Amino acid sequence: MKLTLSPIGVVHSPFKHKEDVSRERHRKKEGFDDISGELEIYPEFIPGLEDIDGFSHLVVIFAFHKSQTGNLKAHPPFDHKERGVFSTRSPQRPNPIGMTVVRFHRRSGNRLKISGFDMIEGTPVLDIKPYTRRDLKPEAFFGWLESREKDET
Amino acid sequence: MKLTLSPIGVVHSPFKHKEDVSRERHRKKEGFDDISGELEIYPEFIPGLEDIDGFSHLVVIFAFHKSQTGNLKAHPPFDHKERGVFSTRSPQRPNPIGMTVVRFHRRSGNRLKISGFDMIEGTPVLDIKPYTRRDLKPEAFFGWLESREKDET
Repeated sequence: MKLTLSPIGVVHSPFKHKEDVSRERHRKKEGFDDISGELEIYPEFIPGLEDIDGFSHLVVIFAFHKSQTGNLKAHPPFDHKERGVFSTRSPQRPNPIGMTVVRFHRRSGNRLKISGFDMIEGTPVLDIKPYTRRDLKPEAFFGWLESREKDET
Repeated sequence: MKLTLSPIGVVHSPFKHKEDVSRERHRKKEGFDDISGELEIYPEFIPGLEDIDGFSHLVVIFAFHKSQTGNLKAHPPFDHKERGVFSTRSPQRPNPIGMTVVRFHRRSGNRLKISGFDMIEGTPVLDIKPYTRRDLKPEAFFGWLESREKDET
């Protein structure tokens, strides 16, 4: 079984290259809240944007279009060892699909103003979903990421 | 630009058909917490599962393999009107990709024991990611979903 997808839009971002994201990450850890940009949705999909106003956050599903695929191990930023790729958010993974929760500010026609993301300019958008209560897990804990965080404090 | 994806595994679920999910939803609203099942990961991807233990929740990206594509409007359950599809989690959408945050209990080899989901038996799994702090937005608000919730109380 193969699944073939076509973008519904494209990301406009201050990050023009992958390297810009790494630089920002090292400059200010967890510091993407103040990154602003837009999702440009292709005209034929505009009717699908109705009722999106009023949500504070959106789930953006996108393609890691600049990453190689197939890797089963990843070396995350700020970590001292390789990890199984499914325990990381690495862009280099068997299927090059990303998911990020962004702050949604407003819509102007086919453009959605967003902030708080590390997608790069030209990233193909595959889907947009509202962030709902079922995505909110205050009781969550975060495996190796927590011990990493502890190491740093 | 087209993106072609192949499943990394398959969902095992007590829901054998789409209709079973609707029935459960009407029986007990927001009632999927006690639904248990497994993600079976294909053997060639097992090295990618390393370090996944210790995360309480996983983001599962999957294919809506039993749904028609292309719809730009959806009629959500418990709602009185049609909505733009990108403001809903409807399975019938331009790219048939689903995202759900599940409770993760334990791994046994290539099987991940999970709960709290409404995916059906045989659903193709495209990706698994750890649920991290950046996915947790306690300040979120939920657009038309909130007025719907208010109507019901």
